[in-house]
Amino acid sequence: MRPVAGMKLGTACAGIKQPGRRDLVLIELQPGSSCAALFTRNLFRAAPVLVAERHLRQAPPRYLLINSGNANAGTGAEGVAHAEACCSRVAQLSDSPAEAVLPFSTGVIGEPLPVERIEAALPDAMAVLALDGWEDAAYGIMTTDTVPKGASTTVQIDGEVITVTGIAKGAGMIRPDMATMLAFLGTDVAVAPELLQGCLQTAVASSFNRITVDGDTSTNDACVLVSTGASPLPPIEDAADPRYPRLAGAVFQICERLAQAIVRDGEGASKFITIEVDGGRDEQECLQVAYTIAHSPLVKTAFYASDPNWGRILAAVGRAGIAKLDIDALTLHLNELCVVRDGGKAAEYREELGQSIMDQEEITVRVGLSRGVAQARIWTCDLSHDYIRINAEYRT
Amino acid sequence: MRPVAGMKLGTACAGIKQPGRRDLVLIELQPGSSCAALFTRNLFRAAPVLVAERHLRQAPPRYLLINSGNANAGTGAEGVAHAEACCSRVAQLSDSPAEAVLPFSTGVIGEPLPVERIEAALPDAMAVLALDGWEDAAYGIMTTDTVPKGASTTVQIDGEVITVTGIAKGAGMIRPDMATMLAFLGTDVAVAPELLQGCLQTAVASSFNRITVDGDTSTNDACVLVSTGASPLPPIEDAADPRYPRLAGAVFQICERLAQAIVRDGEGASKFITIEVDGGRDEQECLQVAYTIAHSPLVKTAFYASDPNWGRILAAVGRAGIAKLDIDALTLHLNELCVVRDGGKAAEYREELGQSIMDQEEITVRVGLSRGVAQARIWTCDLSHDYIRINAEYRT
Repeated sequence: MRPVAGMKLGTACAGIKQPGRRDLVLIELQPGSSCAALFTRNLFRAAPVLVAERHLRQAPPRYLLINSGNANAGTGAEGVAHAEACCSRVAQLSDSPAEAVLPFSTGVIGEPLPVERIEAALPDAMAVLALDGWEDAAYGIMTTDTVPKGASTTVQIDGEVITVTGIAKGAGMIRPDMATMLAFLGTDVAVAPELLQGCLQTAVASSFNRITVDGDTSTNDACVLVSTGASPLPPIEDAADPRYPRLAGAVFQICERLAQAIVRDGEGASKFITIEVDGGRDEQECLQVAYTIAHSPLVKTAFYASDPNWGRILAAVGRAGIAKLDIDALTLHLNELCVVRDGGKAAEYREELGQSIMDQEEITVRVGLSRGVAQARIWTCDLSHDYIRINAEYRT
Repeated sequence: MRPVAGMKLGTACAGIKQPGRRDLVLIELQPGSSCAALFTRNLFRAAPVLVAERHLRQAPPRYLLINSGNANAGTGAEGVAHAEACCSRVAQLSDSPAEAVLPFSTGVIGEPLPVERIEAALPDAMAVLALDGWEDAAYGIMTTDTVPKGASTTVQIDGEVITVTGIAKGAGMIRPDMATMLAFLGTDVAVAPELLQGCLQTAVASSFNRITVDGDTSTNDACVLVSTGASPLPPIEDAADPRYPRLAGAVFQICERLAQAIVRDGEGASKFITIEVDGGRDEQECLQVAYTIAHSPLVKTAFYASDPNWGRILAAVGRAGIAKLDIDALTLHLNELCVVRDGGKAAEYREELGQSIMDQEEITVRVGLSRGVAQARIWTCDLSHDYIRINAEYRT
């Protein structure tokens, strides 16, 4: 991952859930940085989400503080006090206001945050702040993730190389309704704050908001895009600036790569499934069909079993709640293979053809509704024994 | 199970999916019987559903023909012809019109119904028609069910003993949106057809329509209530008849017992979970919260692990889509134990108390929304390794 001028990252062991794990990440932003952020739409918002939102309104951010191993969610007023205490300690150590620190937490819900251990580890994190700390940070924010997730790209604008780099964590409780679990992106080009927020929203809408592992929305979801302004380029002030689409494209590319990495690392996932629905009257109904397929335990276990059980996909489409859907006009493809045409099994379909596709690790399901021109695409994974094992054992 | 005067049941081996299994059930209704029925609301309606609905409109039913092992769904025009052929064969053997035969199928989707084998086995089923055939029939309609499901009760009306007996099958693909999989009930008292339909609808609304195993709705759901009129009592003609509530109570009782039996036999189920939501503005929002909890893979795996991970329940409530829900007024109980009060962990809650409840096989989750007087109750089960195993292996 390429460093982003103006952002330094430091990781330390706070021993939050297990000793010796580097579970605390501090990100320092150079003065004058802007910060766009999206948070979970779950009504149960974790304490750090409440505090981060408030701090964002109160002061320009200088530090992002992330801990894994404890979500500080369902912890009430005490949880908010704990999140504030962590911010105050960062403020103390860095001689900045507490409101310039944004807290993020991920891990077990309902247990008190071990504030003392975090406070004790903060000087260590601060001591190792470095431009090349992205990879350690990607490890530090992991919970049930099996691999760190990071992505980086550059674009040349007016002769200057601009960097967009991001990290994310998330494997279960993934159906982002705003952003997914935790993701932190940075770019060195200066962008006006409202434009930065719009850039993040647009990118997230077609990336983090298009993935689902289990349909569960976290209480702690947050996605942050930092613009440090360290690049010598003049700020991008509005969307009509010809440089904006270049930047937005790079941000989307990083969000898409991180979002797909989350699905690939979905708890227990053995298959990466792309679900495309086209021919809808609007995007909403296409998404409704796509998510109904993606959340069907029967469809997901069929993928796990490499079973071309297309009847389960049809049954999911049929209960997706689409009014006046003409099932006799429906098509279903697995990759390029037509399985269902005009609502019934396609004449050329053979079980062995379906089997050869289901045996693959990456599969595209394409449903044609044949009643409009809207379309949507989401990504999901299968439901396996390991999902059960991971989530049954998660607190033990 | 007590016999219902006027209903005879016969079971035979057609070898539809595996040889030697009694997979064909024929139910004979005495002339003059009425038949109320509810069918799946999945837009993909299996061929037998289409045919049964049409036949119901065309003639008074004399026979119900049920096969397991093949759903005859996703089979298009050929599937309809196959269902018709089976009905015709029954008609031929019994000298009644084909329209007096209602077909029902359950099993694998998308494979052609082996009509010849069914036709060949029909005389065997007809030869063993008997009043005491209920238990064999309960076995005959099973697919992934591990136990047959039957229930029977009597009520005394005007000195006469009236019987209500029913059987059902279903273990996976269970989220009835109308009725669940297949259920057949009978009573000997005569009931006017519209009243019989209303009686069934009311009973199903609070029983089969309040259970979920995996949120998947079958293409073949059907629930039938037969009134044979074999009892000497004069017909119950309208709901104001003081005998009606007694009958309706008995029908509801049987539906409730069968519905709960389906959940207890849910694929891979090791726990029976009752979810009660009260304090809602209307029943709809209570149901929405209840189903969001019941369908959360994270909540279901926590039950499987006997893990008092109440944070996952809160997270499900928070994403249930209830507008303006005040989370600070929320309560959560496990059985009689208060876990969450005023949106946060209750002062008296201790992990070991929660653990002792989660260790049990029957658990009630009670969520208080504190914003109205509506309530709802549903039943579900946990999500276990066996669910994955059963559904991954189902076609192999």
